[in-house]
Amino acid sequence: MSGIVTTGEKRLVLASGRAHPVLAQEVADELGVEILPMDAWDFANGEIYVRYGESVRGTDVFVLQSHPAPINTWVMEHLIMIDALKRASAKRITAIAPSFPYARQDKKHRGREPISARLMADLYETAGVDRMISVDLHAPQVQGYFNRPLDHLMALPILATYIQEKYGNEDIAVVSPDAGRIRVAEQWAKRLGGVNLAFVHKSRDINRPNQAVAKRVIGDVTGKTCVLVDDMIDTAGTIVQASDALIASGAKSVVIATTHAILSDPATERLKNSSVREIVCTNTLPVPPEKQFDRLTQLSIAPLLARAIRAVFDDGSVTSLFDGEV
Amino acid sequence: MSGIVTTGEKRLVLASGRAHPVLAQEVADELGVEILPMDAWDFANGEIYVRYGESVRGTDVFVLQSHPAPINTWVMEHLIMIDALKRASAKRITAIAPSFPYARQDKKHRGREPISARLMADLYETAGVDRMISVDLHAPQVQGYFNRPLDHLMALPILATYIQEKYGNEDIAVVSPDAGRIRVAEQWAKRLGGVNLAFVHKSRDINRPNQAVAKRVIGDVTGKTCVLVDDMIDTAGTIVQASDALIASGAKSVVIATTHAILSDPATERLKNSSVREIVCTNTLPVPPEKQFDRLTQLSIAPLLARAIRAVFDDGSVTSLFDGEV
Amino acid sequence: MSGIVTTGEKRLVLASGRAHPVLAQEVADELGVEILPMDAWDFANGEIYVRYGESVRGTDVFVLQSHPAPINTWVMEHLIMIDALKRASAKRITAIAPSFPYARQDKKHRGREPISARLMADLYETAGVDRMISVDLHAPQVQGYFNRPLDHLMALPILATYIQEKYGNEDIAVVSPDAGRIRVAEQWAKRLGGVNLAFVHKSRDINRPNQAVAKRVIGDVTGKTCVLVDDMIDTAGTIVQASDALIASGAKSVVIATTHAILSDPATERLKNSSVREIVCTNTLPVPPEKQFDRLTQLSIAPLLARAIRAVFDDGSVTSLFDGEV
Amino acid sequence: MSGIVTTGEKRLVLASGRAHPVLAQEVADELGVEILPMDAWDFANGEIYVRYGESVRGTDVFVLQSHPAPINTWVMEHLIMIDALKRASAKRITAIAPSFPYARQDKKHRGREPISARLMADLYETAGVDRMISVDLHAPQVQGYFNRPLDHLMALPILATYIQEKYGNEDIAVVSPDAGRIRVAEQWAKRLGGVNLAFVHKSRDINRPNQAVAKRVIGDVTGKTCVLVDDMIDTAGTIVQASDALIASGAKSVVIATTHAILSDPATERLKNSSVREIVCTNTLPVPPEKQFDRLTQLSIAPLLARAIRAVFDDGSVTSLFDGEV
Amino acid sequence: MSGIVTTGEKRLVLASGRAHPVLAQEVADELGVEILPMDAWDFANGEIYVRYGESVRGTDVFVLQSHPAPINTWVMEHLIMIDALKRASAKRITAIAPSFPYARQDKKHRGREPISARLMADLYETAGVDRMISVDLHAPQVQGYFNRPLDHLMALPILATYIQEKYGNEDIAVVSPDAGRIRVAEQWAKRLGGVNLAFVHKSRDINRPNQAVAKRVIGDVTGKTCVLVDDMIDTAGTIVQASDALIASGAKSVVIATTHAILSDPATERLKNSSVREIVCTNTLPVPPEKQFDRLTQLSIAPLLARAIRAVFDDGSVTSLFDGEV
Amino acid sequence: MSGIVTTGEKRLVLASGRAHPVLAQEVADELGVEILPMDAWDFANGEIYVRYGESVRGTDVFVLQSHPAPINTWVMEHLIMIDALKRASAKRITAIAPSFPYARQDKKHRGREPISARLMADLYETAGVDRMISVDLHAPQVQGYFNRPLDHLMALPILATYIQEKYGNEDIAVVSPDAGRIRVAEQWAKRLGGVNLAFVHKSRDINRPNQAVAKRVIGDVTGKTCVLVDDMIDTAGTIVQASDALIASGAKSVVIATTHAILSDPATERLKNSSVREIVCTNTLPVPPEKQFDRLTQLSIAPLLARAIRAVFDDGSVTSLFDGEV
Repeated sequence: MSGIVTTGEKRLVLASGRAHPVLAQEVADELGVEILPMDAWDFANGEIYVRYGESVRGTDVFVLQSHPAPINTWVMEHLIMIDALKRASAKRITAIAPSFPYARQDKKHRGREPISARLMADLYETAGVDRMISVDLHAPQVQGYFNRPLDHLMALPILATYIQEKYGNEDIAVVSPDAGRIRVAEQWAKRLGGVNLAFVHKSRDINRPNQAVAKRVIGDVTGKTCVLVDDMIDTAGTIVQASDALIASGAKSVVIATTHAILSDPATERLKNSSVREIVCTNTLPVPPEKQFDRLTQLSIAPLLARAIRAVFDDGSVTSLFDGEV
Repeated sequence: MSGIVTTGEKRLVLASGRAHPVLAQEVADELGVEILPMDAWDFANGEIYVRYGESVRGTDVFVLQSHPAPINTWVMEHLIMIDALKRASAKRITAIAPSFPYARQDKKHRGREPISARLMADLYETAGVDRMISVDLHAPQVQGYFNRPLDHLMALPILATYIQEKYGNEDIAVVSPDAGRIRVAEQWAKRLGGVNLAFVHKSRDINRPNQAVAKRVIGDVTGKTCVLVDDMIDTAGTIVQASDALIASGAKSVVIATTHAILSDPATERLKNSSVREIVCTNTLPVPPEKQFDRLTQLSIAPLLARAIRAVFDDGSVTSLFDGEV
Repeated sequence: MSGIVTTGEKRLVLASGRAHPVLAQEVADELGVEILPMDAWDFANGEIYVRYGESVRGTDVFVLQSHPAPINTWVMEHLIMIDALKRASAKRITAIAPSFPYARQDKKHRGREPISARLMADLYETAGVDRMISVDLHAPQVQGYFNRPLDHLMALPILATYIQEKYGNEDIAVVSPDAGRIRVAEQWAKRLGGVNLAFVHKSRDINRPNQAVAKRVIGDVTGKTCVLVDDMIDTAGTIVQASDALIASGAKSVVIATTHAILSDPATERLKNSSVREIVCTNTLPVPPEKQFDRLTQLSIAPLLARAIRAVFDDGSVTSLFDGEV
Repeated sequence: MSGIVTTGEKRLVLASGRAHPVLAQEVADELGVEILPMDAWDFANGEIYVRYGESVRGTDVFVLQSHPAPINTWVMEHLIMIDALKRASAKRITAIAPSFPYARQDKKHRGREPISARLMADLYETAGVDRMISVDLHAPQVQGYFNRPLDHLMALPILATYIQEKYGNEDIAVVSPDAGRIRVAEQWAKRLGGVNLAFVHKSRDINRPNQAVAKRVIGDVTGKTCVLVDDMIDTAGTIVQASDALIASGAKSVVIATTHAILSDPATERLKNSSVREIVCTNTLPVPPEKQFDRLTQLSIAPLLARAIRAVFDDGSVTSLFDGEV
Repeated sequence: MSGIVTTGEKRLVLASGRAHPVLAQEVADELGVEILPMDAWDFANGEIYVRYGESVRGTDVFVLQSHPAPINTWVMEHLIMIDALKRASAKRITAIAPSFPYARQDKKHRGREPISARLMADLYETAGVDRMISVDLHAPQVQGYFNRPLDHLMALPILATYIQEKYGNEDIAVVSPDAGRIRVAEQWAKRLGGVNLAFVHKSRDINRPNQAVAKRVIGDVTGKTCVLVDDMIDTAGTIVQASDALIASGAKSVVIATTHAILSDPATERLKNSSVREIVCTNTLPVPPEKQFDRLTQLSIAPLLARAIRAVFDDGSVTSLFDGEV
Repeated sequence: MSGIVTTGEKRLVLASGRAHPVLAQEVADELGVEILPMDAWDFANGEIYVRYGESVRGTDVFVLQSHPAPINTWVMEHLIMIDALKRASAKRITAIAPSFPYARQDKKHRGREPISARLMADLYETAGVDRMISVDLHAPQVQGYFNRPLDHLMALPILATYIQEKYGNEDIAVVSPDAGRIRVAEQWAKRLGGVNLAFVHKSRDINRPNQAVAKRVIGDVTGKTCVLVDDMIDTAGTIVQASDALIASGAKSVVIATTHAILSDPATERLKNSSVREIVCTNTLPVPPEKQFDRLTQLSIAPLLARAIRAVFDDGSVTSLFDGEV
């Protein structure tokens, strides 16, 4: 039969946007690869230019971008990088967005609103991704906004292991800052060995529905080390109020565990001035030096991302990385 | 200039599948139209044949189908009807699915599951719909599964008006059967004039997370007429347990209000044998005679659907039909 | 150059819906694989839930579903299974529909009808198949309803070998039950060594076009063992009439050969009470015990499907499997 | 409310390619419009340039092209014209292809063939048509190659009326040139008032399947005026043989009726030298002067096309134009 | 016939992003409409939220956004606004991008670059626009990046009329700042009544190709009032050098005319310190007060945009607005 | 784990249309493969039929077609060949169009024109190509008309090496026939070791813009061997005028170098009768014997195409083949 026959090979390549170079380097180190060389700079009006420094033809590229402020810039850089990879004949393109952009606008809360999270999914598909990897989506339904595979990773094991090692010999209770996140808190409680659960009722006096009142703690937290868990901390208003309510309800101390440390102003100020004993987060988002402080501990998400990348590349199971329990 | 010029016209047409002819007739009566004539029958192996009895060329068609058991048959009939409309040159096709099929499978609860609600959205887009109308989606994120307009209607005003008229002079509390639906209960409480709120904690003793225990009522229901609200009632197990818990907590009586009365066996049996005083639902789904009983009240959703259809046809605002409050 | 390089591998996996487990097991046995473990069950309203029991990441999956009654259920299960495979990162998904659903509705016979066979093709593409395998499509134009490769297999060699071995020493004539299938009958005649051809003129007296009359046999069948061939037998009305006409025209006996044994009621009754000597079919569709009877012989299509699967997996030629002659 | 409100209008415009200007002018005259002015010429290498002479913004354009030899040129011109209309903001574009290009390649007759008819449908959709109009498709399944409305017109009434008026007082039989077109012949027979049917068995001695033999006439044609009907006549070999067979079987005379007069060489020569009394065709394709001859009668398809255009523009029913009978 | 019939109406609505409110208001004033009310604000991390204040159902919306720095923010706001309009059932969405974003990255200058201008076109199509309007695209081929109509307007008449009125009685020459824009300069020369043409050879001594040398003026500019024309002025380096070269070649004075005044730093500084007599630009981009200076004249593009909007809404010809000459 | 595992392989296959068999054979020889056997012929009306002679299942196919006159035929054959490959399960299809069809119609020069180059890109994507290879596109923006990878090769090294070897010891100047191609001429000048540059000002007296005048040479060409470079030569009118102008300006002799030798009549006549010393072109297009003449030298593009094919197949870098300099 006519033709030339060879054995197929596949090559893993890691590319990274400019939003969070430290994380990219950590992932590269975990994988034992170098980051794909890339020139990237901005025109004076903000237009972004990128060009890769070596061939990506036929490769299995993982292109990582974090999404802190200014988030639209980093989304656009991500899309442009994907376009360049597609046109340069990458064989498969996996976008890694550790904290999915616009995840909170995942529905029309009222008429005449956008559904920006769906729009983001569509923009990524349009630019040319074959698949995505993300960590702790605000609503799991966002998975359905893609028509391509999305690997949804969980930071819980990383955070919980740290908590267990540091506070394991204290009397722990896991606390959800509102009623909507109790399921996640239950997973935490199981993971920590069946400890107590509680939650803070975020809204109002159940008897006076139109009037916002103080936070109420449901569940017994007296004398406990409370682990207050949430997927993201933006301005930290709600979480600090929850912490105060726990202390007021007799908690011994409060430790916050969260995946995405957005920490928009005045989050750092609020947390520093609060009763919170420690804030544990991952580095899905960079925390600039001026927002860091003593009681803030950032754990690296890089090992988890690297394992997922390797599993995707090797066609191994990722399920074990994200739902050991659920 | 060459050509022929005429004034544009538009024509509203209502088509209906075979799943719930009573509802279709009610909608037609509300609109003052006749249902588009259609031949529809099944081959012996279940294949469905449809053909419309008159031209739909250039029309603005609203094609209604309810989705009770056997749900796959009714979905497929709906899709086939849409295909026939598209090929017959309907100008715009709006599918009305009062209870969205597969709404509960709106995410991968675990790895290697489908996201069937997204699949349904895609099947409808593929068949050729231009827009959809649905009532009380299980998760509002399902709106984002479409890339075409979806008008999301609320049955709350219909149900609440009935409750208000019948029980308005009693001491009412609105109760959510679990923590996840408190926001909806709040809307009810406001609508009913700021009455009490409560909810049943559906899972477990907060101190023993791995052990399922009796339902606990949060909020004061003593001596109250409790209106227990949920989006759908399938086998009625959870809701009857919640009702029992309310009675046990001193409630005077329990009235259930729900949009989608799936009432799979043994729902009717359970409800009949329960302490529930009345079950109020809409007719988004047909309730066959053998599942009806004295205390079950079905309110027609037809006026709401008809108003939405008319607003869509007239380019009026539908927002007023579904988020007067939110 | 940066990156990790490995040799590519590919893995064949066989998945199966619940419509015809016997056929799936036969195919698995032929291939020497186990069927992919899957949980599948129905909600009370008919909604289907599926989940695979092991990882399919990076695999070349063949997902088999038969399409007997209730056909819409099995189509929907097939689509949902494909959606789950796509989201679980299967590398390539080949749907096997041995008897293509809605194959008879392959055109608008009249205005305002659907073209359901095209709709089915679109639904499969939407769900995420990369290619399809089917056996003896009702009209070969259905291949063109897909924009992806469709391997069109022929059951003729399986059926003809059986006929040859059993009736080869008799005086055979191949008969088409109507004028439209003579080309297929010609292939049969060649395959059986150049035997006689005949056909039954299904409609009307050629001199009185508006009046349905008795079937007329064209060609000489006197004293012959007639092999009456058709792609599917549904209610068996036409084929039994043709058989009667052959006997009336002096045929010694009639053997029916068909690919798809739909056998909707009253097919079994009709065939049992008929003059037919034997009915030979394949198991593209399951024949439940209550529809089986002595003179019905079901030959397994599994070896053919397994060879096609293996050829697709190995990038071998499938053409040899389906058009040795044409 | 903000905004400017006006009454909608719609404007019908007729555009035409260069393949068959006479037909275009006839259609324009029927409609009472002028053909949209267009510059069109060819570069020396065959590249086609077109530009419209006046605005088509917001119009309902019907763009007509016939598809004689060199067919690829006319297809490409049609596509380029559609692209220009789309970019010039036409509101709706209906392509009229009276004889659908590549209609005969509607399936893979063998492995490794294209399905060119489906490809044509896709090319038209890609260029930007919203709908199509065609006459007497070779296989009705081609309708399913489009996912947009296709109005399938029938030339039968035009041809049959002519036959009726000219030969109505003779003893007519309708004859199909092969077994595959008997259904069409039946429609003719009904239309002509229930006259006799016959057909020519085009292939081989039914008892010697591997040997091509003379044509055999099935049905009684003795002393009849035979109307031999087919959808297209290309080189006329088959139809002339059928005519000869009819005369040999005692027919008084033979009149051929066909929709698409391709008349590739040596069709005219063959027909002129044949026993055929008259050939009646439509002008879906142009017949150049050198291919015309005394016994060839071309009836205009323009009135049918014009009525279809007007019905589409006015949202009237086209069904009455094509399936009064079927 | 069943159904409700009414006369169609259409409603023009103007929406605007936050990048350039002055331009939006000018366009609204020209049209005599109010801008569609919209809430729009930024989350701390830069995520944008928008919601329209009144219904857009069934409307013909023109959504205007200018694209100055930070350009990615304004692109994203534009896309999100379009998504919200689509989901709110706008009938037709026309995006107006007076200065098309990323227009300069319209090809791969080298391997492994993106084609960002095409990506932008795709993002707009994905978000849901039906058509676009833009002014003076950097390369006209960008029109081909859309598969929907794009109305390409020219600012030349606005700029040239101003020049004519102010400098018409002087001895004018039109000058292109480099060889690539001579065609545009020719249009200017014609428009100004057949005045002299010249251009500045921007690169190098034609005899020493690898060495950048001083600008050379081709054409006679001695004693002339030179009108130096370009599509955009970013940092103004090139244009100021060209102006200097003209003065050095004996020009009496230099007036710059440009469509898009990007004016990135240090453009204003350079221009202020230059020999340029006046800079005339349009307001496709806002010029903030700190970048304005005496000799900078901004002419409003609003009348042109308003006329185009009105023509699109009324289905009038736009061609007359953009190619009076070409 | 269930399933069958094997090592992946890939097979390179070369297919070719009928437009330029000599080039195809040269490419095959360079690669050391045989051309995929294919039956291809035309129906009398121009419809093309193709069928491959062996299996292409799972292969990496490169399908080459040249695009001389009659260009529409060759485009259509190319599309039909791609359709057949897609349906025959080729794994990846790369279309090679050495001279991209309709490249000159890459924008709307005026309103109501098509953008045929974009249409061509869309037709190729629709037919099923995964990627393209082309040589010296008329405008590099055409790359952006594809949303799949396009490898853009340059013939410059082939042509320049020939020039260097033959004329390297003379005093060379590189000349552009108009102002728009100076960038390309610069690349040539660099490649030839920094020789002189010049260009011919193709349009008009810069002082009398409305009047076409004789060509003017910019740059010093006295006594030089002028290499006049252009991407394509169609009727040769412009290039011969440029050559005459060079001689008139004192050039010693003129050699033309071009990639695409369209040579439509009367190109050969003009060139033969001109002052041109030699015309060097590639064989991206066939030059039929009757158009060849002594001074026309055709260099084979086959080695370049073969190297690109091999690099694409091997996932090597193609960038080195096309932008060593740019």
